[in-house]
Amino acid sequence: MTSNDHAHVAPGFPTVGVIGGGQLARMMQQPAIALGVGLRVLATSMQESAAQVVRDVRLGRHDSLDDVMAFAAGCDVVTFDHEHVPVEVLHALEAAGFAVRPSSSALAHAQDKVVMREALTAAGMPCPQWAVAESVSDAVAFGDLVGWPIVAKTSRGGYDGRGVWVLADTASVHELFTSTELSTGVRWLIEERVDFVCELSAQVARSPHGQAVAYPVVRTVQTDGICTEVVAPAPGLTDEQAVEAQVVALTVAGALDVVGMLAVEMFQTRDGRIVINELAMRPHNSGHWSIDGAVTSQFENHLRAVLDLPLGDPSLAAPYAVMVNVLGGDKPDMYHPYLHTMARDPKIRVHMYGKEVRPGRKNGHVTAVGDDLNDLLTRAHHAADYFTGVIDE
Amino acid sequence: MTSNDHAHVAPGFPTVGVIGGGQLARMMQQPAIALGVGLRVLATSMQESAAQVVRDVRLGRHDSLDDVMAFAAGCDVVTFDHEHVPVEVLHALEAAGFAVRPSSSALAHAQDKVVMREALTAAGMPCPQWAVAESVSDAVAFGDLVGWPIVAKTSRGGYDGRGVWVLADTASVHELFTSTELSTGVRWLIEERVDFVCELSAQVARSPHGQAVAYPVVRTVQTDGICTEVVAPAPGLTDEQAVEAQVVALTVAGALDVVGMLAVEMFQTRDGRIVINELAMRPHNSGHWSIDGAVTSQFENHLRAVLDLPLGDPSLAAPYAVMVNVLGGDKPDMYHPYLHTMARDPKIRVHMYGKEVRPGRKNGHVTAVGDDLNDLLTRAHHAADYFTGVIDE
Repeated sequence: MTSNDHAHVAPGFPTVGVIGGGQLARMMQQPAIALGVGLRVLATSMQESAAQVVRDVRLGRHDSLDDVMAFAAGCDVVTFDHEHVPVEVLHALEAAGFAVRPSSSALAHAQDKVVMREALTAAGMPCPQWAVAESVSDAVAFGDLVGWPIVAKTSRGGYDGRGVWVLADTASVHELFTSTELSTGVRWLIEERVDFVCELSAQVARSPHGQAVAYPVVRTVQTDGICTEVVAPAPGLTDEQAVEAQVVALTVAGALDVVGMLAVEMFQTRDGRIVINELAMRPHNSGHWSIDGAVTSQFENHLRAVLDLPLGDPSLAAPYAVMVNVLGGDKPDMYHPYLHTMARDPKIRVHMYGKEVRPGRKNGHVTAVGDDLNDLLTRAHHAADYFTGVIDE
Repeated sequence: MTSNDHAHVAPGFPTVGVIGGGQLARMMQQPAIALGVGLRVLATSMQESAAQVVRDVRLGRHDSLDDVMAFAAGCDVVTFDHEHVPVEVLHALEAAGFAVRPSSSALAHAQDKVVMREALTAAGMPCPQWAVAESVSDAVAFGDLVGWPIVAKTSRGGYDGRGVWVLADTASVHELFTSTELSTGVRWLIEERVDFVCELSAQVARSPHGQAVAYPVVRTVQTDGICTEVVAPAPGLTDEQAVEAQVVALTVAGALDVVGMLAVEMFQTRDGRIVINELAMRPHNSGHWSIDGAVTSQFENHLRAVLDLPLGDPSLAAPYAVMVNVLGGDKPDMYHPYLHTMARDPKIRVHMYGKEVRPGRKNGHVTAVGDDLNDLLTRAHHAADYFTGVIDE
């Protein structure tokens, strides 16, 4: 620790550098304040979500080696609000002796879906049938084998549903693979299309010395590729199924040597199996409920993990928590709706991200915590819809 | 609202200016982040507790008219982290059209204990017997009337036990009233010494249009004039006694037109009555438990109140919450003890204020939430003692 030169923490307290200034970094600031830990954010503008709420903002780009190295100087550990830092930059940070958590070798699995599938398969983790397609004929042969439609993903760069296509037949494979809108050199991961009854997310926090805690498994609902609703714990899962999903997430975290938060997004199949869909090595939308609904939030446990502090209890603090994302609508003002939503529901928890409203953008989220799941769902959706402007009353 | 010129909030969102950069302002930043509300802090140095964790820090003095007026420009509302802003400065702010909450006329009762006693008595609120002593003989006559010892307080400037003396007899009155350590012009409030079984605090939040919510009444323990332990709800209070205390606090808030958080510190007498000891018109140490133990914390409700937003539910989220202050000891490093305290108790909630350790200083607090009061007390005191360095294991 070299904290004595940090003017914005007490003596002996570390500073965590977060590359990326989005809402995930923003929400790390709340537990950083409680823990007395300094938070430094690398943002591209002072208007970014996290840059609005921390004192130590450094302007720069996550893909600039110079910017990132200058940013890291004086941080006790460097972590991330997204997975897009180029591997060369990560390697340079590590070569210079900075504590990078998660490490470049762990992050590789979140940056490249083929690398992820290879590692998960090697670790015996449940995956959909998958292959790398180097040609249209590779993909067609795979579809004929596992059944149509199939799913095609670019190995790198996708998120929130981008970079994923469902392909019904040979013609659609041909159209996609020869599309001029995609950069050349795309590596195609192709997967069977899983017939799922619901989507689940299992989150764990893991520290450098290997301590790990598992959050309750949650049910997620994706709309147009964006996570819109999360229920904790996932309704209808048996205890055995929930433990199975937690064990998968803990095993993945260990096998890939993840440090910090890991979200394992899964499908629950019609025949009761779980298969892994995606990984995220950072706090994740599926864990926002934990701010208000867990003893220790995912944001606090991310900080505790990357600082190699003992992890906090991830248990639910109530029988259920429901999180619904607040998406941008046509109305530019999300403050005036506070008068209605807060008066109608004194228990609703509101989280806004400081972003200008754009249609479909994640502008915030609301959480309802309690014991009546239907009531929580109704209240959370009402509040979110009112912010979006879908309902007027 | 003139929020479009605030670069650190989304369009339409207001900025709250907080005069004072201590831990109370610091802890307002956490709900300000959630609400998307800008927080601007007037601090005397960039190392102050709140100045470490907000982007919009203005350096200046709370008793400088120029500093405060420059600070207020661009804020949608001005509020406080302490009660020491001179009345002339408050009047100037109000005359210039700024929304000052609580107002100068409400704050006068927290700034001057004689003004407070006069107003509470006029409102029919339960007070100890009191008088203003203009001479030693006034005080002696009062002591002979109500019984010795008596309590003497300077009408202005005291907090955390400073400015309060217990006087056993005529000689001690004489010694105090003629002390050369006190500035001349002190106005003496003298009160009967209440024979209390415990100290209580009843907190309410009140908004400009008169909505008010009452927090559960808590039991506080003061050590050397500093609040060291708070239990919510106060053990041993009957429902009737708790409601009586809440009604007193709500009545005081209305009678004095308080906006924001009000803490009414009370004595519970041996014969079951309550009498008011002190008032604080801001978030208060007796409400720190609410961050982890209530649906809506006192810091969020303070912001919601001064912004005239509907208030949040002040209910306990569990049967009990116990808060214990972390006082500075001989060890300068409070970070290393995280390894022990967090490993021993994954449910303990830690809040540090970013301050250098000084013996007896409030450096932070810990909170334990659950249903077994004795267990919570044991755990919270263990953690706090370990931080202080009173115990090594």
